[in-house]
Amino acid sequence: MKEFIECVANFSEGRNEVTIAALQAAVRSVREVHLLDTHRDVDHNRAVLTFVGPPEAAKWAAYRAIRVACEAIDMNQHRGVHPRIGAADVIPFVPLRAEQLPTCIEIARELAEQVGKELEIPVYCYGAAAFAARNRNLERIRMGQYEWLKENIARDADRHPDFGPARMGPAGATAIGARGPLIAFNVYLASSETDHARTIARNIRQSSGGLPCVKALGLMVGGQAQISMNLTDHRITSISAVIRAIENEVRQLQVCIDRAELVGLVPLAAMMEDARRHWHLPDLSSDHILEARIGQIRETGGEDFIAE
Amino acid sequence: MKEFIECVANFSEGRNEVTIAALQAAVRSVREVHLLDTHRDVDHNRAVLTFVGPPEAAKWAAYRAIRVACEAIDMNQHRGVHPRIGAADVIPFVPLRAEQLPTCIEIARELAEQVGKELEIPVYCYGAAAFAARNRNLERIRMGQYEWLKENIARDADRHPDFGPARMGPAGATAIGARGPLIAFNVYLASSETDHARTIARNIRQSSGGLPCVKALGLMVGGQAQISMNLTDHRITSISAVIRAIENEVRQLQVCIDRAELVGLVPLAAMMEDARRHWHLPDLSSDHILEARIGQIRETGGEDFIAE
Repeated sequence: MKEFIECVANFSEGRNEVTIAALQAAVRSVREVHLLDTHRDVDHNRAVLTFVGPPEAAKWAAYRAIRVACEAIDMNQHRGVHPRIGAADVIPFVPLRAEQLPTCIEIARELAEQVGKELEIPVYCYGAAAFAARNRNLERIRMGQYEWLKENIARDADRHPDFGPARMGPAGATAIGARGPLIAFNVYLASSETDHARTIARNIRQSSGGLPCVKALGLMVGGQAQISMNLTDHRITSISAVIRAIENEVRQLQVCIDRAELVGLVPLAAMMEDARRHWHLPDLSSDHILEARIGQIRETGGEDFIAE
Repeated sequence: MKEFIECVANFSEGRNEVTIAALQAAVRSVREVHLLDTHRDVDHNRAVLTFVGPPEAAKWAAYRAIRVACEAIDMNQHRGVHPRIGAADVIPFVPLRAEQLPTCIEIARELAEQVGKELEIPVYCYGAAAFAARNRNLERIRMGQYEWLKENIARDADRHPDFGPARMGPAGATAIGARGPLIAFNVYLASSETDHARTIARNIRQSSGGLPCVKALGLMVGGQAQISMNLTDHRITSISAVIRAIENEVRQLQVCIDRAELVGLVPLAAMMEDARRHWHLPDLSSDHILEARIGQIRETGGEDFIAE
């Protein structure tokens, strides 16, 4: 059975049903690729498609979806609260086992070259697939967003793409990369004051001295203050640790948490911290979870048989 | 790909390495059967083997292990703190999907007949596989344990087995059945007073007015007071709910929890309650867990492909 990798493709369209359906169809059109989740948000004006498949198939599915996005989305018309540089904004490949990272890097760079050449849009390789150290960090690539980059991509040598032309059409630019599992997680406050979300985001994120491996923005979504987060290593800062930090913050601001929201899926290991803590089982691992063990058998084909 | 069912076979041997290895080898000797876990305890003097496989293969693996147990374990020499009636004490088959319960019942009854006939030991069908209503409940079957049953099995019509002779040899009797997923979970107190564990067990178990779907015994294990539990429906009473109840009890007794212990594996769904509660995600399900989704694809072969 072929090993899967994951792709979590972010497109700058969260409103137009037809475009989102076309993106989904593009992913599903590749044999052996499985679309697991589509998360869309009207205010972010963004759709996140999570899919898995063998590396070459996943690459091909991403390529087809990027092509759809570049044809259907006009960045000059795009408004949304989430930072973005292009129609196919960010395309990360994610190893399902740590050993697959080199494969994800290779696939990301191959796809970047193909997209740059065939679709003629500027492509940055980011994360573990970055060629230049400055492109490791996605926030840096997105700095100034579509509007700024459109004016400056040719001028600023630092912002020249790895593949494709140093000019921006209506599809904008795209970042294609490889990274470890990441948890995209939003918390809504029972408040319509964006400032509350901004204050909390600033206090909890690593870049301003908060929790390690936490990125956070304060946004306004559906009339509610939202803290939009990426947890880049849940082994270092877990979902529960972030929630506890936010609970402390909201108390001080005298607001409260309304609800949370996952963007895409979470790895099983992300659930372990709570169980270890609350169940008094410090050694609990996914090896103790029935479905995880059966999944391993299905994956390996099972070599447990010993002839009598 | 063939569907698996689970078997959680309990044997009255937790000390003798050679016997435990022989039980494991018997399970592993059947093609397509996967031994996932062996939990052993010296004080319980018991080993619990968790394995999965296609129904017929799982039945055959259970049969071989029961045969080993009946040959190797002499109940007249057996001492342990956990109630038991025989060498192969309890053999439940467990559906991995609710729809498999009829299959598990069928397999249990076929195995019961085969064991009664070929190994000539008394067999009770229990749980969902019970023929008589009085045998639905395992505690009732085990009442008086091996020693009492040995004296009374022929005399007491109520205790006549479903298959095999109404007399007990050194292998004792066995209960073979079908049941839903059950969590076997022990909590150790930082105390050597068995009475503390007994008091807590009495206060939390359903049979004395405590939490629904919780069975509990207070035992002495490795010099520590242990609350040994079965959670028969974690959707009704979760691991976390039991822990919270025990935490309340220990405060009143002025002792504390030392640690917990799982016997066998837990279903993924048992982890959801904590995450829903603590992550502010009331709708979280196993569909949001990456590995669970990939497991489903592996299980079904994946029919997600749509030709362009």
